[in-house]
Amino acid sequence: MSQNTSLLTDHYELTMVSAALRQPIAHRPCVFEVFARRLPDGRRYGVVAGTGRVLEALADFRFGPEEIALVERFLDADTVGWLRDYHFTGDVDGYREGELYFPGSPILTVRGSFVDAVVLETVILSIMNHDSAIASAAARMVSAAGTRPIIEMGSRRTHERAAVASSRAAYIAGLAATSNLEAARSYGVPSAGTAAHAFTLAFTGDAGPDEKAAFAAQIEALGVGTTLLVDTYDITQGVFNAIEVAGPELGAVRIDSGDLGVLARQVRDQLDGLGATGTKIVVSGDLDEYAIASLRAEPVDTYGVGTSLVTGSGAPTAGMVYKLVEVDGRPVAKRASHKESRGGAKEAVRVSRASGTITEEVVFRAGGSPGVDGSDGEQVRKLQIPLVRGGDVVDGLPGLADAREHLAAALVSLPWEGLGLSHGDPAVPTRYVV
Amino acid sequence: MSQNTSLLTDHYELTMVSAALRQPIAHRPCVFEVFARRLPDGRRYGVVAGTGRVLEALADFRFGPEEIALVERFLDADTVGWLRDYHFTGDVDGYREGELYFPGSPILTVRGSFVDAVVLETVILSIMNHDSAIASAAARMVSAAGTRPIIEMGSRRTHERAAVASSRAAYIAGLAATSNLEAARSYGVPSAGTAAHAFTLAFTGDAGPDEKAAFAAQIEALGVGTTLLVDTYDITQGVFNAIEVAGPELGAVRIDSGDLGVLARQVRDQLDGLGATGTKIVVSGDLDEYAIASLRAEPVDTYGVGTSLVTGSGAPTAGMVYKLVEVDGRPVAKRASHKESRGGAKEAVRVSRASGTITEEVVFRAGGSPGVDGSDGEQVRKLQIPLVRGGDVVDGLPGLADAREHLAAALVSLPWEGLGLSHGDPAVPTRYVV
Repeated sequence: MSQNTSLLTDHYELTMVSAALRQPIAHRPCVFEVFARRLPDGRRYGVVAGTGRVLEALADFRFGPEEIALVERFLDADTVGWLRDYHFTGDVDGYREGELYFPGSPILTVRGSFVDAVVLETVILSIMNHDSAIASAAARMVSAAGTRPIIEMGSRRTHERAAVASSRAAYIAGLAATSNLEAARSYGVPSAGTAAHAFTLAFTGDAGPDEKAAFAAQIEALGVGTTLLVDTYDITQGVFNAIEVAGPELGAVRIDSGDLGVLARQVRDQLDGLGATGTKIVVSGDLDEYAIASLRAEPVDTYGVGTSLVTGSGAPTAGMVYKLVEVDGRPVAKRASHKESRGGAKEAVRVSRASGTITEEVVFRAGGSPGVDGSDGEQVRKLQIPLVRGGDVVDGLPGLADAREHLAAALVSLPWEGLGLSHGDPAVPTRYVV
Repeated sequence: MSQNTSLLTDHYELTMVSAALRQPIAHRPCVFEVFARRLPDGRRYGVVAGTGRVLEALADFRFGPEEIALVERFLDADTVGWLRDYHFTGDVDGYREGELYFPGSPILTVRGSFVDAVVLETVILSIMNHDSAIASAAARMVSAAGTRPIIEMGSRRTHERAAVASSRAAYIAGLAATSNLEAARSYGVPSAGTAAHAFTLAFTGDAGPDEKAAFAAQIEALGVGTTLLVDTYDITQGVFNAIEVAGPELGAVRIDSGDLGVLARQVRDQLDGLGATGTKIVVSGDLDEYAIASLRAEPVDTYGVGTSLVTGSGAPTAGMVYKLVEVDGRPVAKRASHKESRGGAKEAVRVSRASGTITEEVVFRAGGSPGVDGSDGEQVRKLQIPLVRGGDVVDGLPGLADAREHLAAALVSLPWEGLGLSHGDPAVPTRYVV
């Protein structure tokens, strides 16, 4: 697989270039905007993620010999020549990663000529729609877990490269660690893991299963601070075996099946009775934000989440669109249906009370005024930051750790009902001043 | 991004290797099996896809200097040395791509030493779970569309690399083409596309929008056989403009919003009235298998599907697992919960009536007998084929076109209720002879 991103695009982006290049419109200054018409069903907020990956993808969006060989099959020579020389030279502004967003938020604004900017649509949307969907679901899980850490372990339930991006997005949302090693390598996400049922099952010999031998082998390699998986055969016996082999200094036990609440209580009692009062309990197995919340009163120390996280917990895509909103300074918008868009390049501010609780998002014409200036004691924060200037990524952009901190602070600023898991309206209204 | 796949794995796969390498179990012959405990909610069948990509990933599953630098952070020197030399030397058998599967079907069987086979778990499951989920959803859409072609255009709604795999899986399922250019390059899937609303909007000048100029520009570049998108402003005017500019030989018009059934009828009447009786109608916009079916009686020629396809239409992962089922010839299985597995390496046959309609899937111990031999007039077909021998991919495996043909034939063999879109039980029962 090539690192090149220029074919991670739709056929029609390039046929549009072909048709446009013969016309005066090709090089007119245009503004495209990424936004979501709505949040997924009942969600109160969305979390922006993927922006950092978009900037990486932009740098690799070049048509080399392999890419040219493909596009030559259906494009004229002039268009192929233009693609051969293509690199983005425009500007991008956008919400930072870890920023909350709401319906209509101008999450990314791309300025360039029509042909320069239109070809980026597909790859930008793929990244933003995937990563934001995962981060948005993950943030709800983090809220539900409170101070208890969550480990992301969903790689096996999603495309092998989407798994890496999911780990990254989950880390922005506040998960503690990932099982995914490529996410550790590419993005420095802390990785974690100990053993699966297969490891215990492998210690089956002439005399049948030997769970204690498996536990002893794991401790020999990983130390007594490891997490032993106790539900391969019988959980009560498993906990007993774990402490017998490891002693009361065992780091943790993991339960991956059954009624996790009931089992956590039983296992906590059993561990305490065996003197292993410091041994933690990790639970996993089809957990989503609702299951995490339902375990709040139980003696659970750490959650492992998989499927629900990497599939966006019912909302696997953020539904963002990339719309042409301005041509040569003129607002433009589709008008034929319910899918109307508001024309014109836009900026946004978020307004908070002095207490820090946000009250609304105001979307206004770029270069104009939001009509709120803090003179009534409210705080007004500009939401877009410069990301690309003249095709070059701006220096000193916030990194992954910044995004994680930014989101943690942003979630605290939501009105209290905005953190609820129940379905409802967006946590704050979006007001248009355009 | 590297082509290397060895870090597309979970941390615990490698800590298990570390713990196992110190024990006699490390090099015992083991059998791991990929299967789905159940189909997604209410689905009647699943479609196997991803096997070809698994075989590619296997060849690239090597620990080079970059991968070693990462695993050295948490693994002992012996394990790191073992990984440095690792390449899979075992055997793999499995269902071919495009094969139907049901709960318990032994979709992939991996034979090797414990450590050789356990490290492949995550990447195999990522690929099979993603690609099979997409193919399974896509096959339902193809059934619903009958003889009308469907174009896959969902890249923007999923991770940028998952998009490529989705196009590939959709092609196996019978979709006619994809918008995704990397799928065209990597897998030879036919690509298609013409223009988006942005193209029409770009032709906005001092005198306002100019849809006719946009249509004329598109026809100049792509010819009169192209598809014009007619719903940017007013659909009736859009169709009128399209035929005025293109003449009655226009290839097609596309409608991307609104009540597609009503609009298709109106547009058909309008086109016919304008003499454009051969101009086709393409519809797109949030179509899933149910929406496709609801348009059966309408004058639609081609469907475009996006979000619902790349997200598995409500089932974004196939939920397959990779379980250790045999150690040194002994069946093993987890026993502590509802997540029980059947131990022992297994094979499967599919039994059909003389008419070709399948009646059951029989899963039996590998090397044993399914207990049906065709002597009662039934047809009995073995479902697993050899894929890898001694670490090398078997020569002459079926390709993508074969998988597509195989599935088309397999769908015809389902009992009639199995092709229904409504929720229900698997189309045929799985019988265990173990």
